[in-house]
Amino acid sequence: MPDEAVMQQALRAALLGVRGANPLVGAILVSAEGEVLSTGHHRGAGTFHAERDALDSFARGHPAAADLSGATLYSTLEPCRHQGRQPACTQLILDAGVGRVVHGASDPSSNGGGAKIMRRAGIDVVSGVLAQQCETLNHRWVAAARQARPFVTAHLAQSLDGRIAAADGTSQWITSKAARDHTHMVRSRADAILVGTNTVEVDDPRLTARTPTGELTLRQPLRVVMGMTPVRPGTKLTQGRPEGDGWLQLPTRDPLEALQELAQTTHGGYPIKHVLVEGGQSVLSAFFAADLVDEVFAYHAPLLLGTGRDSIGDIGVRTLSEAPRFALDPAESGPVQIMDSDVCVHLQPKGDTCSPES
Amino acid sequence: MPDEAVMQQALRAALLGVRGANPLVGAILVSAEGEVLSTGHHRGAGTFHAERDALDSFARGHPAAADLSGATLYSTLEPCRHQGRQPACTQLILDAGVGRVVHGASDPSSNGGGAKIMRRAGIDVVSGVLAQQCETLNHRWVAAARQARPFVTAHLAQSLDGRIAAADGTSQWITSKAARDHTHMVRSRADAILVGTNTVEVDDPRLTARTPTGELTLRQPLRVVMGMTPVRPGTKLTQGRPEGDGWLQLPTRDPLEALQELAQTTHGGYPIKHVLVEGGQSVLSAFFAADLVDEVFAYHAPLLLGTGRDSIGDIGVRTLSEAPRFALDPAESGPVQIMDSDVCVHLQPKGDTCSPES
Repeated sequence: MPDEAVMQQALRAALLGVRGANPLVGAILVSAEGEVLSTGHHRGAGTFHAERDALDSFARGHPAAADLSGATLYSTLEPCRHQGRQPACTQLILDAGVGRVVHGASDPSSNGGGAKIMRRAGIDVVSGVLAQQCETLNHRWVAAARQARPFVTAHLAQSLDGRIAAADGTSQWITSKAARDHTHMVRSRADAILVGTNTVEVDDPRLTARTPTGELTLRQPLRVVMGMTPVRPGTKLTQGRPEGDGWLQLPTRDPLEALQELAQTTHGGYPIKHVLVEGGQSVLSAFFAADLVDEVFAYHAPLLLGTGRDSIGDIGVRTLSEAPRFALDPAESGPVQIMDSDVCVHLQPKGDTCSPES
Repeated sequence: MPDEAVMQQALRAALLGVRGANPLVGAILVSAEGEVLSTGHHRGAGTFHAERDALDSFARGHPAAADLSGATLYSTLEPCRHQGRQPACTQLILDAGVGRVVHGASDPSSNGGGAKIMRRAGIDVVSGVLAQQCETLNHRWVAAARQARPFVTAHLAQSLDGRIAAADGTSQWITSKAARDHTHMVRSRADAILVGTNTVEVDDPRLTARTPTGELTLRQPLRVVMGMTPVRPGTKLTQGRPEGDGWLQLPTRDPLEALQELAQTTHGGYPIKHVLVEGGQSVLSAFFAADLVDEVFAYHAPLLLGTGRDSIGDIGVRTLSEAPRFALDPAESGPVQIMDSDVCVHLQPKGDTCSPES
């Protein structure tokens, strides 16, 4: 198989992952004879990198001393150089004795430079195969890294006609249980959840990540309130604790300022690299207007409100050609999921979107 | 196989059809030995009824004199008695020599009474098998028939945040070519397309049904304008012809009045039994507020407008519990279709919705 064909396969594997703090990455280990030995992908922050996933998957079915000197490891992204939560992939590749590495995109982050290290160690490294597709796969992750800010997922849970509350303010629940369970799953993989002061005033949400049966998940995101109105004591999200203990307020209306502030913050010992923006209208509109949304989960509930609160307000668009456009995101579970009676559409800002040839 | 199990199969066959002037109907022909001989469903106004579809499908593979005296024909709806655009199904069943007929719902329309006729002719007729599921399959078609009005399909083509035009009024095009092609297909099977006077003023649409390459389809629906502002001469939808020649205006703001008026109208020699309501906001809101929408195609285009014109305005809902609710419609191509970059959701008003066990 030519390198490009295997890389296409690696791109498809990458799309099985979830977006967030880390980029989507796929890896494929191929024998000297051209046989696919194993496939790997990255499953989200805190889990193994795709290269390790592929190497581990191979190791589980083969003797420890298997000779990989004739094998090639394909990865959509340059293998990492630094030890983070996981050991550096370059080291794992050297340890496994892989003779050749082919990668797509170069790593633009501080973890870049792996190709150089592997070359120095005598591995035959080919860079830039399907580079454009591999880069556009994570075009928003790269944008976030360049701005030194967390990756932003936006949550849009609305009626068929785009409302998030009825005329009298009632909003619980517009979406189905299955859609709300999905939101909790997305919460559980974010480092922080961000809402506006108005949402805190009106809904008084707990902002915890819970399982479908209501238990707290192991990992709880930082609860962040953005806006000028001080959070009242007794508000549920504070859990009776002082600011800084599981929650904090960012007294700004500027979303980039908020994100840069969060980039300087740690939670449970880890930096904030992935923020879920849940609303309400003002906060979501500010993030969209500033082009600071990298991923969208839009839940469309099959009911009509006609009046009440719109999900999105003025974002500075005067005419159709100025409208920010999005693309269906094939990553994770695909662009569309039915959740009970609701339809969840998974989107990313339109760019040179990645669609591997099938 | 027990009668109920075959009827479940007939229900699934029925869902392959399209909603509109006629109900969804599925039919299955089963031999004396319990073998499924053929399956049929109704494909929309002007096409064969499900019973004929099943009988024809059987006849194509068998000798003309095949003995069906031991066979059973299952139909989700009572076979029709009157000759309409097609010969009466009761007559076709008698001619084919089918010995037994099992049907689900009774026909509430003027075409009902087929069971009685078949019994008199010596056929063993079982009525009411899975009657409730067979009735709810077409609960809105029955509602329309009871109100002596056409079946109504609503068209909602909007941005992700529920807008149908930007602040400056631009709206061409919010949805993708594939979504607009789908709309033309829906137009081509409707007897009439209805829009408001404001849509005519602002968009000056042709309201013709066209193929993806732009040619007019064979069947063109009546073009209907609802509202008090007179349609100006030179407006495209008039095609330079006087009112009554392919188009007409209904000077009312009451959607039931408009539908009742259309029920008294013919177009190309046929009665108006299926109306596609395309908009804009005032007209769609009036139909939804009056619970006069029987089917919805909601096209969600992945862009944000933030301001501009909402797809739906005040429909009298003050609080969430008053919101009209819809259910994903499994009929036709299923509840969700991706059309280029857009997601089309197929809905029907929530009732005792039909979901055959799979």
